Amino acid sequence: MNRRTVFFVSDQTGITAETLGHSLLTQFEGIKFKQITVPFISDVDKASEVVQRINLTAQVEGYKPIVFSTFVQNDLREIMAGCNGVFMDFFDAFIGPLERSLEMKSTHTTGKAHGRADSEAYTRRIDAMNFAVANDDGVTTRNYDRADIVLLGVSRSGKTPTCLYLALHYGIFAANYPLTEDELDKRSLPASLQDYRNKLYGLTIEPDRLQQIRGERKPDSRYASAQQVGFELRAAEAMYQSNAIPYINTTKSSIEEIASQIIHERRIKRGNSGHGD
Amino acid sequence: MNRRTVFFVSDQTGITAETLGHSLLTQFEGIKFKQITVPFISDVDKASEVVQRINLTAQVEGYKPIVFSTFVQNDLREIMAGCNGVFMDFFDAFIGPLERSLEMKSTHTTGKAHGRADSEAYTRRIDAMNFAVANDDGVTTRNYDRADIVLLGVSRSGKTPTCLYLALHYGIFAANYPLTEDELDKRSLPASLQDYRNKLYGLTIEPDRLQQIRGERKPDSRYASAQQVGFELRAAEAMYQSNAIPYINTTKSSIEEIASQIIHERRIKRGNSGHGD
Repeated sequence: MNRRTVFFVSDQTGITAETLGHSLLTQFEGIKFKQITVPFISDVDKASEVVQRINLTAQVEGYKPIVFSTFVQNDLREIMAGCNGVFMDFFDAFIGPLERSLEMKSTHTTGKAHGRADSEAYTRRIDAMNFAVANDDGVTTRNYDRADIVLLGVSRSGKTPTCLYLALHYGIFAANYPLTEDELDKRSLPASLQDYRNKLYGLTIEPDRLQQIRGERKPDSRYASAQQVGFELRAAEAMYQSNAIPYINTTKSSIEEIASQIIHERRIKRGNSGHGD
Repeated sequence: MNRRTVFFVSDQTGITAETLGHSLLTQFEGIKFKQITVPFISDVDKASEVVQRINLTAQVEGYKPIVFSTFVQNDLREIMAGCNGVFMDFFDAFIGPLERSLEMKSTHTTGKAHGRADSEAYTRRIDAMNFAVANDDGVTTRNYDRADIVLLGVSRSGKTPTCLYLALHYGIFAANYPLTEDELDKRSLPASLQDYRNKLYGLTIEPDRLQQIRGERKPDSRYASAQQVGFELRAAEAMYQSNAIPYINTTKSSIEEIASQIIHERRIKRGNSGHGD
């Protein structure tokens, strides 16, 4: 298999370079990428050191490494750009058009993108994460007044990771409530959820996949049996439908896709960036 | 204050477009950006509808909206590029250079960047999130064998959000352990942590900030008093130093910066993308 080394370099955390680089690399199949992140390249010496490392890699491997960069400081970016790699700086490509359009110069300040620049939005994300952990798995329903969304689903249908992602990425207050066998037997919406109908969103999953997930946790259990899984999922979906609760099948979707879909559909106001669509 | 409308548009979740756009916009101060994300623009009709919406905004506001785009499908991107906005497509700018360097065509497949393309890495992230929640706040130490990192700190020093971020973003198994007053009194490393010295990482925080955070939670309490907070933080830092546990002051850093620093310093192998530096 074809192998290539990829560097993510930045005078900040490198998170933007990684996120953007990963998105691009997913478009190339059949290549094994060895990925190296070097964050906090904050002075000329550090930049020169990384250039040497990239050049050595090029020499040893016989290919130019791919270098994804997000340098805010122009002098450091210029040093990096002199490396013997395929150098792509994300800021460089777009800051120019933005400056012309906005008719102002960018600040060239580090630590903005993943720093605490927007303190209100940052605090909201932290609060949302603490909220998600404190309101996980139906431990309490008394904070649902403060919730932006309450996810419903049977055990292991993906509620917890989705709530954490909504909190961390969007600053959304997300609680989750596991539908128990008793509640599914009764078929009516649990009493404690009645007042929050407009905040509810259901998760479901293919029976085969749920059997597999539960089986890894409790092999050969009733909990992981085809019969039990089938009953729970049918009852949950019937509950969603008869109460007009929107729901999504999580089997083939990532938490990013699920979260994005929920926000889009429920038109939830985001805590991180102003308004959703 | 100057106001501009920004659209994030994509035939996928729009998360990459948002990440790129947010990073760039932080470099322009004094402008209020109204941000609108339109994900899942998956056909010609939807694309045309969004173009009309952008054009209407341009007409009403008298400025071209800024449009950050990540279209994998060329035909849809071309429709979007015809809008009356400052159009910046991220894939368009970088896929070409990458194709030339890698000597292969990109797949132009949607749902890769934030989908479940790399199933192993995805599963690891989900497992890491469940691990973080199950091992939050020292509820148990019996899973520390499986932990990549165990964060230490006094109450409200930022342990939980940092663990969740390490899990969600990097697929790192992160537990956290709150240092109690009893343990801080004794000054020695708690017995249950002795076997995991090479996984420990300490958090600390400025006393003023911690007083503020605790005060919001329990006003006028001993817990939030200057004396108590001062004692706890001095004792925690002394414990880190006498046990050679690396630690970081979280006061002015975001969880992204803290996480990035911990990975960099502890040289933790990342679950999401191969290897850290």
